[in-house]
Amino acid sequence: MKRIAVIPGDGIGPEVIAEAVRVLACVQQKYGIAFQFEHFDWGAERFLREGVTLPDGALQTLARDFDAIFVGAFGDPRVPSNKHAEDILLGMRRGLDLYINLRPVRLLHERLTPLKNRSEREIDFVVFRENTEGAYCGAGGFLKKGTADEIATQEEINTRRGVERIIVAAFEYARRRGRKRVTMADKSNVQRFGGDLWQRTFREVAARYPEIEAEHQYVDAMAMFFVLDPSRYEVIVTNNLFGDILTDLGAGIVGGLGVAASANIHPGRVSLFEPVHGSAPPLAGRGIANPIGAILTAAMMLEYLGFDHAAGAVERAVRESIAVGEVTRDLGGTLSTREAGEAICQRILRD
Amino acid sequence: MKRIAVIPGDGIGPEVIAEAVRVLACVQQKYGIAFQFEHFDWGAERFLREGVTLPDGALQTLARDFDAIFVGAFGDPRVPSNKHAEDILLGMRRGLDLYINLRPVRLLHERLTPLKNRSEREIDFVVFRENTEGAYCGAGGFLKKGTADEIATQEEINTRRGVERIIVAAFEYARRRGRKRVTMADKSNVQRFGGDLWQRTFREVAARYPEIEAEHQYVDAMAMFFVLDPSRYEVIVTNNLFGDILTDLGAGIVGGLGVAASANIHPGRVSLFEPVHGSAPPLAGRGIANPIGAILTAAMMLEYLGFDHAAGAVERAVRESIAVGEVTRDLGGTLSTREAGEAICQRILRD
Ligand SMILES: CC(C)[C@H](C(=O)O)[C@@H](O)C(=O)O
Ligand SMILES: CC(C)[C@H](C(=O)O)[C@@H](O)C(=O)O
Repeated sequence: MKRIAVIPGDGIGPEVIAEAVRVLACVQQKYGIAFQFEHFDWGAERFLREGVTLPDGALQTLARDFDAIFVGAFGDPRVPSNKHAEDILLGMRRGLDLYINLRPVRLLHERLTPLKNRSEREIDFVVFRENTEGAYCGAGGFLKKGTADEIATQEEINTRRGVERIIVAAFEYARRRGRKRVTMADKSNVQRFGGDLWQRTFREVAARYPEIEAEHQYVDAMAMFFVLDPSRYEVIVTNNLFGDILTDLGAGIVGGLGVAASANIHPGRVSLFEPVHGSAPPLAGRGIANPIGAILTAAMMLEYLGFDHAAGAVERAVRESIAVGEVTRDLGGTLSTREAGEAICQRILRD
Repeated sequence: MKRIAVIPGDGIGPEVIAEAVRVLACVQQKYGIAFQFEHFDWGAERFLREGVTLPDGALQTLARDFDAIFVGAFGDPRVPSNKHAEDILLGMRRGLDLYINLRPVRLLHERLTPLKNRSEREIDFVVFRENTEGAYCGAGGFLKKGTADEIATQEEINTRRGVERIIVAAFEYARRRGRKRVTMADKSNVQRFGGDLWQRTFREVAARYPEIEAEHQYVDAMAMFFVLDPSRYEVIVTNNLFGDILTDLGAGIVGGLGVAASANIHPGRVSLFEPVHGSAPPLAGRGIANPIGAILTAAMMLEYLGFDHAAGAVERAVRESIAVGEVTRDLGGTLSTREAGEAICQRILRD
């Protein structure tokens, strides 16, 4: 019995999560896996009503009672600068020490990429984004705020432990999956302190994996090569901020946020799974949101929980649905969110 | 008489600069503009020989005796982590207070973009990158360096003056060129101090330009939209680090570093012009480097010096050369660096 905390969140979150949960129910039926879902109403509504973002004791409950957390999206135009979104999402990432933000950049169908002449085989890599420190530490301050002499500082904090564990995770993944190369991205030619720690740690960890090629690239060059030569990448490891930018760009080259999945992992502990897309207020309530990002996120959760076979079946069903055009309008189909989810379910049951 | 300090630098730098200088000589002949070039040998050779990067008094000489600085590229595998490159380039940017790093992202020919179905009209914007502060301030430090408890901090410093002047430059440019929208990119949902200063300053400056639409985007979303919908951009303004990443990505979507130009400007003072590409050691000395990035950089310099007509002629000649395939191998042609430069010269003279 696997216990899943479901947090649909705001905007299109509940709509796409409903379809992903439908797919998990099909998986349950087909593969005899037992899930128990518990829903939580954290998000903009609750915040506007009660002023609560992550309720007291929430992290303890999640850590104690659940195997995984399945999240939709947070963001609502009624909340100034979406403060609740960062509180909840970054609060869980940091509070549960989910130090691996794993984001596959995998092309599901040639048609989906905005790049010329790129096949599925040529865009297929994963990004290991550090998820608990760096530019996300919240440190910084103002001097003479509001005056012509104002200074605003913003800090990055990198710890040896934090840097090492994400780099180790990337190499372990490469070894397990038979990937031949790990590429580390930084801006160490300018950020000489954080960059130096990343460089040294990368070299030291790489030396323990002699069978895997360890490559370094500056983040600016990497962004360019994502569009000019994505086939060179197998496994990428980088810090929190560069990982944020590179994975959105990665979502772009495989067809947009509609199909991008992600996992926030602390190996052996409760981990969090969320589609990369946001709450997309203009699409909410119209039944047109693409559920594939959420469904592939559910597949990542299945894999994390040890059901590789079921995860593979979900991914196969998604690929087939895309190939035959049984998809929502953003991917060139005609289906509603619900119909797109149901089409994938049917394929899983028939598989 | 315009006095140009030429710093060819390392690797392919001297080869591409030679062609750009050839083009400037043609412009001189055709349009009766008088240039006086003085060459400086700053770069890896000199650094390895004498340990000197930016010689004593160099900045004063540049500021006093020249109208513009024309730079090739810095970087040499013999210099550990290319320390000389950052010393020279960042030293000039900061030392001469060249606060505007202006990088056009302009598609010269459909064939060049890696994106599907994008015409010249659809990729045509400029990035105003802040060029003197932010993550490039050099601040940061180590605690317990080399131990398992090591912490490395890295600081960003943003000043109201620094942020305001680059945002003003972007809006002034938009007004002058009749551009309708300025988009500011930041990560203010996470970087709350620097981000807040940028947001406030952007809103205040934008209010002075009511005819121009002021739009905000998070940098991660912007990176994605560069590949999914580049036609939405007209003028972008952002900080030093995000500008670095976004402009390399911008170079990617218009065909790579071979054609990307940039200007480092302090209005009314000596300013610096450099192709975006690096020294590309593997290409050096083989006569195959693409001179177009350097030649378009020379066109930006012409424009800065007030010779709009000549700048337009150079750009036209480059476009025509690309259209007929009179280009180096990286763009699908067969010409050498020198032949590609000469072809552009001939077109300028015939124009
Ligand atoms: C919403 C935001 C704080 C978040 C981040 O920056 O991590 C998002 O962009 C993401 O990538 O999950
Ligand atoms: C070489 C490096 C320091 C430089 C930068 O980061 O500014 C380069 O990437 C650039 O964009 O001109």
